[in-house]
Formats: sequence, C-alpha cells, structure tokens
Amino acid sequence: MSNLRIAEIFGPTVQGEGALIGEPTVFIRTGGCDYRCSWCDSMHAVDSEFRHTWLPMTDEAVWSEVRELSGGVPLTVSISGGNPAIQDFTGVIALGKAEGYRFACETQGSVARPWFADLSMLVLSPKPPSSSETVDWDIFADCVAAAKDAPRCMKIVIFDDTDYAWAKDAAARYPDMQLYLQPGNPMVDPDKPVDLEQTTERLEWLIDKVTADRFFRARVLPQLHVMVWGNKRGV
Amino acid sequence: MSNLRIAEIFGPTVQGEGALIGEPTVFIRTGGCDYRCSWCDSMHAVDSEFRHTWLPMTDEAVWSEVRELSGGVPLTVSISGGNPAIQDFTGVIALGKAEGYRFACETQGSVARPWFADLSMLVLSPKPPSSSETVDWDIFADCVAAAKDAPRCMKIVIFDDTDYAWAKDAAARYPDMQLYLQPGNPMVDPDKPVDLEQTTERLEWLIDKVTADRFFRARVLPQLHVMVWGNKRGV
Repeated sequence: MSNLRIAEIFGPTVQGEGALIGEPTVFIRTGGCDYRCSWCDSMHAVDSEFRHTWLPMTDEAVWSEVRELSGGVPLTVSISGGNPAIQDFTGVIALGKAEGYRFACETQGSVARPWFADLSMLVLSPKPPSSSETVDWDIFADCVAAAKDAPRCMKIVIFDDTDYAWAKDAAARYPDMQLYLQPGNPMVDPDKPVDLEQTTERLEWLIDKVTADRFFRARVLPQLHVMVWGNKRGV
Repeated sequence: MSNLRIAEIFGPTVQGEGALIGEPTVFIRTGGCDYRCSWCDSMHAVDSEFRHTWLPMTDEAVWSEVRELSGGVPLTVSISGGNPAIQDFTGVIALGKAEGYRFACETQGSVARPWFADLSMLVLSPKPPSSSETVDWDIFADCVAAAKDAPRCMKIVIFDDTDYAWAKDAAARYPDMQLYLQPGNPMVDPDKPVDLEQTTERLEWLIDKVTADRFFRARVLPQLHVMVWGNKRGV
C-alpha cells in the first residue's frame, strides 16, 4: 500500500542546519503540513497546491530509493517536510535500521509519534511569533516524551527581537535540551539568488545578540545549504 | 609565576569550526608552536617574530580575564594557538572547572598532556601534506591516550586531492573517532577581505568530494568565523 506522500528524496548532500550540520545525509522530504509558517522555505512540500507533485510511495519504495542514492553505504537519513510527523515512518525506519542506517527527523512538535523513539536525532523546531503559528506546548511535551531515550534537540529560527525573547522562554521549558538558534532567511524564492553578505550579516546579528546577552546555552548556526546553494532545491 | 605565554584572550564569540561549531566560546590563544604550517592562519600566535606581543601571564591572570569577558557566566573556553599543548594548562582548567566552565582544546597532536583528560572536547588536527609538516603518529596516539575518557574528535583541513586521500588514511587509524573535514583557507592575510563566493565554492567542492566518494563518516564544515568576519582578529 502506498501509504506515504513524498515531495522529494535527494542526496547524499550534507545537513545544513542544527545538531547534525555538515553530516552527510539523504533527505526524505514529505508532502503535507499542519502549519503555514509565513516565511516557510519549503512551500512545495507544504501547500496543497503542490499536492499533485507528491508521490504516493510504499515504505519499500522509499527505502529502495534511499538505498540507491547512498549506494547501500549506511549514513544518516533525515526525514523532513512539511511536517513528517503527520505520516507514519515506522516501516521506513525499520527497513533502514536493519541495514545500519541512522534516522533523524525534523518536526515542529505538533504531532507525537511512537517512531520518534527509533531516531538517532529528533529535531524539534517550535515556531516563533514571526511564523504566525502558535505552539501547543502540551503536544510538544508529548513529542519529547515519545522520543523516550532518543537524542533530541530544539532548533528555533529567529527573525527579530520578539522571536529571540520568545526563544529564550521556549528554551527555558527544557533547560537540559541542546538548543540551536538560526537566523531566519527572508529570501525564500527558489528562482532568486541569495545575498551572501546579507545572510552573513543576519548571522552576525544573532551571534552578537546571544553573546551580548550571555545566553551561552544557545548554539548559533546558519543554514549552510543556503550559503552554498541558495534556495535551490534538491541539494 | 607568569608561566603562560598568551597571544590573545577574546570573546565571547562563537566557535567557528568543528565539533563545537556555533557554541558560545571565549578563546585563549597561546603563543608559540612546534609546527610551521605553510598556510597557517594564526602566525601572530606561532612565529617567534611576534613573541614580544605574547603576554606572560599567571594561571590566575588568565582565568580572571576569561571570567571578566564572560561576566562570570559559565561557557565553553577554547584553548588554541599556536599549539597550546606546549604549555601547561592544568591550573587554568582547574580554576575554570571549579566555577562550572567547560574547556576545549585544539592541537595538532604533537605533544601529549595529562590535562587533556580534563577537557570537555579535545580537537586533534593532524596536518595534511599541504601544510609541509609531518605527523608523528606515535605521539598522536599518546595524545589520544592522554585524553582518557574525555570526548575527542579529529579535524583535518583539506586543500587538495592529496590532502583528501591523506585524510582518509589518517581517519582510518581511528575508525571510531568523529571526523570533521574543513576546506583550507588560502586567503589568510588579515588586511585583505575574504572572497565569500570563493569560500563557499571551496566548501561545495569538499562536500561534492565526500558525497561522491560516499565517505559518510566525515562531517564537512566551513570556517564560520571566516565567512562572517573574514580573517579579522579577536572575533
């Protein structure tokens, strides 16, 4: 049964963000999302307008494509979206782990899934005010609980001072969770080149903010893939 | 007794490289090095020509400056150089750990020190052929052994295909050690601006190399500080 809706499977490339930055990765980008962030950089995997481009696939078909892309050599597979947690990845993860692959998943924390416990990294990205979405912290806590002993971290995108203040409060809910802050990318048009100078300026702004504020628990990282490839898809 | 020679103490900023990339950090850059890498980007902390700029400091004076820069809020302190392992950091680390600070150290692995075991991260950077230096792997093994249970990783700078092939062999000596590869920066003049496009192109070259080669154990990261601040000192 073709139980999954997949926007794209691509790689190997390197993870561009957060805890696994620089890690060779094949990405499974799922189609569909329960959020509509104002600055979403992956609308082709979110908006129903693109639904016709999402391929219905079986667990086996997804796994077969990941294996082919990686030449059968185990690596980290990142399940992202959209929100991958609206779908069931139990089967794909089981197929991959049996061959020595590791799985990371990136989700906003709005839907909890038992398969979070099978991950080598659960990246929870609660969305700040600039997104225009609102976090349900009870469900977020369910997501953390579902991960059981699996490593997890929090990654928050920061566009402005309001987001930054919100991120500090959000992080305070989980004082022991590794925290990554990432400057927002306001240039999400895949057909327009990214301004590298502006991207590094935004990173510098966030670094200055964190260090001046002595908020030393936060690690500050850019979107490396945006610096290298702009908003191009499939890398 | 002013037992340490210090080129600069600066921060907080974020770590720009390797395992702790993005981590808020105060840097202690020591003066003096047993290597003379052809492409060294920190000659002001290496060459005896700059010796008059290295401040003789006591453990207490070094610690006092780190505490002041960080406002007494614990964070990661990176001991770099030059080669910090030619000096004795037992005292500084003890003073800092007593106040909840963590210490990382970056060294080429040419001198082993008991205080490696007190670190939260020992970054070993064996130098590839392009450096014109030669690694003594027996001493390198002594460094790994000295770290005991402390987390450690290997970081190798890659300028060309020869360096890359060498890095694979070097990494194979320590199959379980986390490995970071970093494109070399040929533009080390602090008075000249760094070409961002060229820097990202070199990163893309290395990412393509690692992924095409399916060398998935290597994480590929840029020098983030060079992308943000060029070769400017003290950031």
